[in-house]
Amino acid sequence: MRQSQLFTKTIKNIPAEEKSVNAQFLIKGGFIDKVMSGVYTFLPLGWRVINKIENIVREEINFIGGQEVSMPALQPKENWELTNRWDNFDALIKVEIGEDSKFSLGPTHEEIVTPLVKKFASSYKDLPVYVYQIQTKFRNEARPKSGLLRGREFIMKDLYSFHTSEEDLDKYYTRAEAAYEKIYKRLNLGGITYKTFASGGAFSKYSHEYQTVSPNGEDTIYICDKCRIAVNKELIESEEGGGSKCPECGNKDLKEEKAIEVGNIFKLKTKFTECFNYKYADEDGKLKPVIMGCYGIGISRLMGALVEVFHDDKGIIWPEAVAPFRAHLLILGDDKAVAKKAEVLYNKLLDNGIEVLFDDREESAGVKFADADLIGIPYRLVISPKTLDKGSVELKKRDQERMELVKISEILKLIK
Amino acid sequence: MRQSQLFTKTIKNIPAEEKSVNAQFLIKGGFIDKVMSGVYTFLPLGWRVINKIENIVREEINFIGGQEVSMPALQPKENWELTNRWDNFDALIKVEIGEDSKFSLGPTHEEIVTPLVKKFASSYKDLPVYVYQIQTKFRNEARPKSGLLRGREFIMKDLYSFHTSEEDLDKYYTRAEAAYEKIYKRLNLGGITYKTFASGGAFSKYSHEYQTVSPNGEDTIYICDKCRIAVNKELIESEEGGGSKCPECGNKDLKEEKAIEVGNIFKLKTKFTECFNYKYADEDGKLKPVIMGCYGIGISRLMGALVEVFHDDKGIIWPEAVAPFRAHLLILGDDKAVAKKAEVLYNKLLDNGIEVLFDDREESAGVKFADADLIGIPYRLVISPKTLDKGSVELKKRDQERMELVKISEILKLIK
Repeated sequence: MRQSQLFTKTIKNIPAEEKSVNAQFLIKGGFIDKVMSGVYTFLPLGWRVINKIENIVREEINFIGGQEVSMPALQPKENWELTNRWDNFDALIKVEIGEDSKFSLGPTHEEIVTPLVKKFASSYKDLPVYVYQIQTKFRNEARPKSGLLRGREFIMKDLYSFHTSEEDLDKYYTRAEAAYEKIYKRLNLGGITYKTFASGGAFSKYSHEYQTVSPNGEDTIYICDKCRIAVNKELIESEEGGGSKCPECGNKDLKEEKAIEVGNIFKLKTKFTECFNYKYADEDGKLKPVIMGCYGIGISRLMGALVEVFHDDKGIIWPEAVAPFRAHLLILGDDKAVAKKAEVLYNKLLDNGIEVLFDDREESAGVKFADADLIGIPYRLVISPKTLDKGSVELKKRDQERMELVKISEILKLIK
Repeated sequence: MRQSQLFTKTIKNIPAEEKSVNAQFLIKGGFIDKVMSGVYTFLPLGWRVINKIENIVREEINFIGGQEVSMPALQPKENWELTNRWDNFDALIKVEIGEDSKFSLGPTHEEIVTPLVKKFASSYKDLPVYVYQIQTKFRNEARPKSGLLRGREFIMKDLYSFHTSEEDLDKYYTRAEAAYEKIYKRLNLGGITYKTFASGGAFSKYSHEYQTVSPNGEDTIYICDKCRIAVNKELIESEEGGGSKCPECGNKDLKEEKAIEVGNIFKLKTKFTECFNYKYADEDGKLKPVIMGCYGIGISRLMGALVEVFHDDKGIIWPEAVAPFRAHLLILGDDKAVAKKAEVLYNKLLDNGIEVLFDDREESAGVKFADADLIGIPYRLVISPKTLDKGSVELKKRDQERMELVKISEILKLIK
């Protein structure tokens, strides 16, 4: 895409109340626009990143058998009364339409997916079922202040699984864990993201979160380096006398870190299926409760977390897998021969399936370099009279200091 | 995909209040599930259709320079007061969060996109700008009763254009018309969809709708066969003494038809830019009003319209471009040799990039044929001991009566 055509620009002055690193860089770089507290528009650059994160998540969830659907945001009050959450769900946004119709704006979809799957899967032969969606959710955060980490409107992947037995749930839970590990690895978060023991509520000893270490994270976790797992501080404080030790190996030498929750998985067991009286018929026709699990990943939150983790003082450093473009081609000066070469190179890259942002604007070298650093595309290519004298282009990776002159004929090999 | 794995099934009994053809077939076929009046879940088959429609629309809007964003559903009351629509927009859903925060659930996005583009495009050099999204919208329809044709929560493509002059708007309006024609043509609706003159409101003589002829349509249009355009009955009734004549050639011999509105385009001119005091600086630094257009297509409504148009008494007949799968492979009987051949064929089709729904269920031939007709996939392939005796598969197109035995080696050529 030609940067001269992109309708957004980088921005110098951003709303004073935006204190978080992710909101600051994402607004400055033209990835998101703040509509109001906790509510953002995703601009062309930002929407490309969201789509890439979504596709990675989609591939891995499809791989473990997830079937994609799209459930509505508007949810009937009656369903939320059946689960006793209409008055008890923290931050539920309620909508009144007319005199007697009340709805929630879904912050999660157990109230919709449970009666849905009940309609179709009534026999042991129909189970297990794995259903997911990537969809917009709503929460009334009192004081959203962490950019994309905590929004009032946000994008989630939520997967729900339905089983005939706890053993079958356990088996799938392990597959979901493997899928989550792959997702974080593909996002370059593998090394700093920990499966974390958290409170399990009434039905399970533990739930599990995935926590990415980051100094601006809202959570505090205690990491066991031996097991490569962690414990959420909240769990430690809630467990009577449990103290701070690894729930797997008993190790007490845990490392405290701030972290961002980037996913959670939960054995719901019969918590929701009982509310909807959802039973299945076993081999003998006997009715038994359906066992359920749920698995969430905040897509827009992940985008914020990536910026919190991958940036320097000049801007964002996108991992290749989710960068809005792979290459940022900058043309310096207004030499016509250079412009012509740049056009040829731009088209050559496109023809080879490389996504390029082509900075063809009439701006100074300083402005172009600063914008490139802020936007954070992995491969920066500079073409100028100086580089062209040597039949070359200057190549710099966003995450390295080193620049090198590369023959135009060699570029494809280096950045493909 | 294996049909035995698909968590949905075809359904015999559907909610009594679902009178529309599209809702009946879509619910029976397992494409959508009704959550409440005017609110549906898109099931795996239906979500595939939605994605295909979206991608066709996206390609054509990208082709005319549209830049994709995603704006929020939650919109501040203040913006709607600035445009004087908070109390005057028919069917606006309002949300109150806490004591003093009021929002709308966006039924359209002029109130968001106008101040957004104002932030970035302040000079004549920055214009024109074309921004669009494919996003969930909300309307409080009093008695939604037409399935996907009129929902309280629905998916829209909305494109907005911003210009320095009315001439420039006119030029882009023509390009948008061409894009719309291409979209309807790709959906097989070209021959029965008419650009239709409708009321233009306060700022323009006309707006334009795209209307698809269908006996269950909510609109009445008058078609001029010579010009291949139409006039909405509402416009005829509102024009003093205008009577029913073609606005282009004056022809009075118009054909009355029922039709479904499948798109609309509108010259907003300065209606919204004035409310947000959005002006641009021209070549001389003089401030001038920005001129605006908007262009909508209901994605989920299009899905409903396609079913209204393409069905018979047995079920849906999807156009190839949006069918959930290209081929429906049915295996009859429980012969092991047949099953083995079917597996080989299934994998061969997949390897060749053909999307296949493989009916590998233990069901009778009657059930399988009825489900295939209901679901409406374009190419039905039946493999049974009888066909296999001749080294063949039976091929039938959903929109034709004729069946033919086709050598397994020939299938790819015929359905690719």
